Amino acid sequence: MGKVKNILFIMCDQLRWDYLSCYGHPTLDTPHIDALARRGVRFTNAYVQASVCGPSRMSYYTGRYVVSHGAVWNFVPLRLSEWTIGDYLRPHGVRTAVVGKTHVIPDLEGMRRAGIDPGSPQGIALAQSGFEPFDRDDGVHPDGLPGKATRYAEYLRGHGYQAENPWHDYANSAEGRDGIILSGWNMRWARMPARVPERHSETAYTTRRAMEFIEQQGSDPWCLHLSYIKPHWPYVAPAPYNDLYSEADILPVNCDPSERINEHPVLGGFRRATCSRNFSRPDVRAHVIPTYMGLVKQVDDRLGELFAFLERKGRWADTLVIFASDHGDYLGDHYLGEKELFHDTVCKVPLIVYDPAASSSRGTTNGQLIEAIDILPTVLDAYGIEAPSHKLEGRSLLPLIRGGGAAWREYAISEADYSFRSFVREPLLRSVDGCRSYMLRTQRWKYIYYDGLRPQLFDLENDPDELVDLGLEGEHAPLRRDFEETLFDWLRHRKIHTTISDAAIAGWTAAERDQGIVIGEW
Amino acid sequence: MGKVKNILFIMCDQLRWDYLSCYGHPTLDTPHIDALARRGVRFTNAYVQASVCGPSRMSYYTGRYVVSHGAVWNFVPLRLSEWTIGDYLRPHGVRTAVVGKTHVIPDLEGMRRAGIDPGSPQGIALAQSGFEPFDRDDGVHPDGLPGKATRYAEYLRGHGYQAENPWHDYANSAEGRDGIILSGWNMRWARMPARVPERHSETAYTTRRAMEFIEQQGSDPWCLHLSYIKPHWPYVAPAPYNDLYSEADILPVNCDPSERINEHPVLGGFRRATCSRNFSRPDVRAHVIPTYMGLVKQVDDRLGELFAFLERKGRWADTLVIFASDHGDYLGDHYLGEKELFHDTVCKVPLIVYDPAASSSRGTTNGQLIEAIDILPTVLDAYGIEAPSHKLEGRSLLPLIRGGGAAWREYAISEADYSFRSFVREPLLRSVDGCRSYMLRTQRWKYIYYDGLRPQLFDLENDPDELVDLGLEGEHAPLRRDFEETLFDWLRHRKIHTTISDAAIAGWTAAERDQGIVIGEW
Repeated sequence: MGKVKNILFIMCDQLRWDYLSCYGHPTLDTPHIDALARRGVRFTNAYVQASVCGPSRMSYYTGRYVVSHGAVWNFVPLRLSEWTIGDYLRPHGVRTAVVGKTHVIPDLEGMRRAGIDPGSPQGIALAQSGFEPFDRDDGVHPDGLPGKATRYAEYLRGHGYQAENPWHDYANSAEGRDGIILSGWNMRWARMPARVPERHSETAYTTRRAMEFIEQQGSDPWCLHLSYIKPHWPYVAPAPYNDLYSEADILPVNCDPSERINEHPVLGGFRRATCSRNFSRPDVRAHVIPTYMGLVKQVDDRLGELFAFLERKGRWADTLVIFASDHGDYLGDHYLGEKELFHDTVCKVPLIVYDPAASSSRGTTNGQLIEAIDILPTVLDAYGIEAPSHKLEGRSLLPLIRGGGAAWREYAISEADYSFRSFVREPLLRSVDGCRSYMLRTQRWKYIYYDGLRPQLFDLENDPDELVDLGLEGEHAPLRRDFEETLFDWLRHRKIHTTISDAAIAGWTAAERDQGIVIGEW
Repeated sequence: MGKVKNILFIMCDQLRWDYLSCYGHPTLDTPHIDALARRGVRFTNAYVQASVCGPSRMSYYTGRYVVSHGAVWNFVPLRLSEWTIGDYLRPHGVRTAVVGKTHVIPDLEGMRRAGIDPGSPQGIALAQSGFEPFDRDDGVHPDGLPGKATRYAEYLRGHGYQAENPWHDYANSAEGRDGIILSGWNMRWARMPARVPERHSETAYTTRRAMEFIEQQGSDPWCLHLSYIKPHWPYVAPAPYNDLYSEADILPVNCDPSERINEHPVLGGFRRATCSRNFSRPDVRAHVIPTYMGLVKQVDDRLGELFAFLERKGRWADTLVIFASDHGDYLGDHYLGEKELFHDTVCKVPLIVYDPAASSSRGTTNGQLIEAIDILPTVLDAYGIEAPSHKLEGRSLLPLIRGGGAAWREYAISEADYSFRSFVREPLLRSVDGCRSYMLRTQRWKYIYYDGLRPQLFDLENDPDELVDLGLEGEHAPLRRDFEETLFDWLRHRKIHTTISDAAIAGWTAAERDQGIVIGEW
């Protein structure tokens, strides 16, 4: 089998782990992603380090927990001292680029202070979390600008879709009587087709751009972050994907009235949000989820083309392929919409890794507790680049994939901060720095610690749907205390000395002796 | 009284809080520092955030705990995303400079990655923890170079002291028979005079340079970090300071044989160090401490000149004067030498603040728990500059000094990391990332948490000399558990989102509404 030369890091946005046929969806058939799983390893317990776009992605790209990189929510600039995938790969001659969404916000204040020209190669890399912006496009907030200055917007205009924001007006809107634009922002229009044919949609465009990049690179090594915006809202799909599925095809909602009794106050807060109230309505779910499914299906179809293209180019022999998501989508489960908390619905993600150098694990599943921050070390490991242990907080998956795996972690961590959500924060009288929460997930349990509030505890062995909160149960108090200790232990071991390696520290005293430095001699 | 225009931030290195007459030293008379205390407020419970030069200073200069700035020990570069005093003052037209030691190591790797020219103004500021290097000189490791390229070395050579390293060969060495150089590194020569007259010594030179800077600034606002290297080793003083004191003048050692019984393993490790073993000998103490005292006396004499100079220039009317130390010096107390742990001997420091705008607190003492990270917010407050609460972790002392003080903190924190000290780490079988410890100091108690090892607990009300470790006492277990909870709470509230302000977070949802952004509408 092959030696890894390239990395194809595919990400969908807001894709639930259970909305792929290889993960068990009964009606949404995703044969191409399934085929990837058959070629590689499908991880069934992979967790993101935050269940919202910004911090989740910053963790993926830095290989560090949220508490370490500090981009605690969306729209928080990534400190310019945080190293990313591109920083590690570029010095080794690997062109590292993105097609699609990263959601990174540049640390402009930091760059100004340091006198860094944002237009310089380094300035651009810093602003783009290390990815060369081959085609950077966040959709909603591309580079912080509203859809105008992206290549996709130009592309659309070039195809006759004239508008200031064609991404919105055409690709993400439907059309009513007399050509009225029905914005995809309004879920009421979810079943209507987008105002572009499929080939002009984001997903199709993004896939073609990825193929262009790979073509361009020829036999030179590359790392491409192919980052689809879909199935993230706006929930609007081009024909025929808007119409492939119906109410009969959607998964039953996962909730129970008992969840509302003595509900955790943070969940109570999020359940008041517009999206939560809407997605708790069966008619809304029936209307929107089929389109969500259609968007997933469309990605799978386009990945089929991409995978065939990789076949033609011989890239399966030398490319490590990763398929993941930045978080899930409640879609009404637990009376919630959107994401941001810790249920598996949003915090567990699909993760498939195809490794050209592994053969015995092909088509297997692995239930170890994986963290998104494992991806970066995996990429480095695939290239034989030593992972800087003083910066990276995850671990390479290659021992699990190639065999010879050492003991694995006993718990996965995720973090949330609802300080930005004043409709949650204010009724709870929490200060802006009093809204942090942490999920500690073992193979059996999920423990959630909320600063200043009661914890949550779920027994996933007996309650896999996470309906029974044992956070207040007396008999589980010792277990909760243990988890709290573990959380404290985790927090005390963050990688804080990012400017000096563990090896340098370990060898310090010997080095001093060699230099003849002795203090307090007599 | 006056409005603050300038800041004079005086620091001694390795100066114990109890080696000044205003703090009670019975034989070491420091009239000028005492006079400063009579003009200002003398703080009797001020703690540094690490008891070793590098991390202590980085905390002073960034206003952040060690866990937040990450420069966990000496020689650890300060991440270039850490803002410092100069970053906050310079935009307000305050020339911010250093004469003397900062011990900052530049984040060269970070600068290379960001394409920052180390020779540019911003590059220099980043390399110098924000201080313009009017005369940066660390003595031992000036700018990482051995004594050659500093202005002081040039100055010495200009006065006829020809050597590759005149700082060492002349200012910090004595002379034996036939002109043999007796290095100050060897404590055996501590009582002999340095090979320079007092006026050519570091302390005298540094003081003159400070006056030159202040003179140069005229009526333009300035912030000067006047950072003496003494009484830090080498323990060698110019005549007559080498000979002012004798064994009869030194404080009795603070230790008790009971401390060695079931001693804490980390203390046991540090007690094996050469400096500890030497300073535990009465003859070494008797020989060295008088010189240590002489070095302090010399600083006080020179500060007398500086204070008279400030008087002549009218600077007492518009200058906030801070006098502090980066940590203490064991000098044999607790069978230890040097610093690095948490006894008051090294972790509590002298702190005097003279505020031209305060009158009713003149000559008073204040026993509140102060942290070194309070200095930066105090400086900003003095200028009426809003302290960025998302970065700074201390608080302004002005409410304590000017009156109207709000409730103060209940505990002070300090941190230590012995990972660099393999002679401590290896026998304990600790990994490089398993050597962190934390002091939590309330008004009555001192609790010390050691990762993976037993804690320490001292009842400072009944045991002010810290001789009785209650870390294993059963009856104190509930108290220790409380402190552990508090430590966990402290760790969960670090200022991690340094790129977005608390105000921006608090106003986020309202801002979104104003921009018409609603998700999940129906």
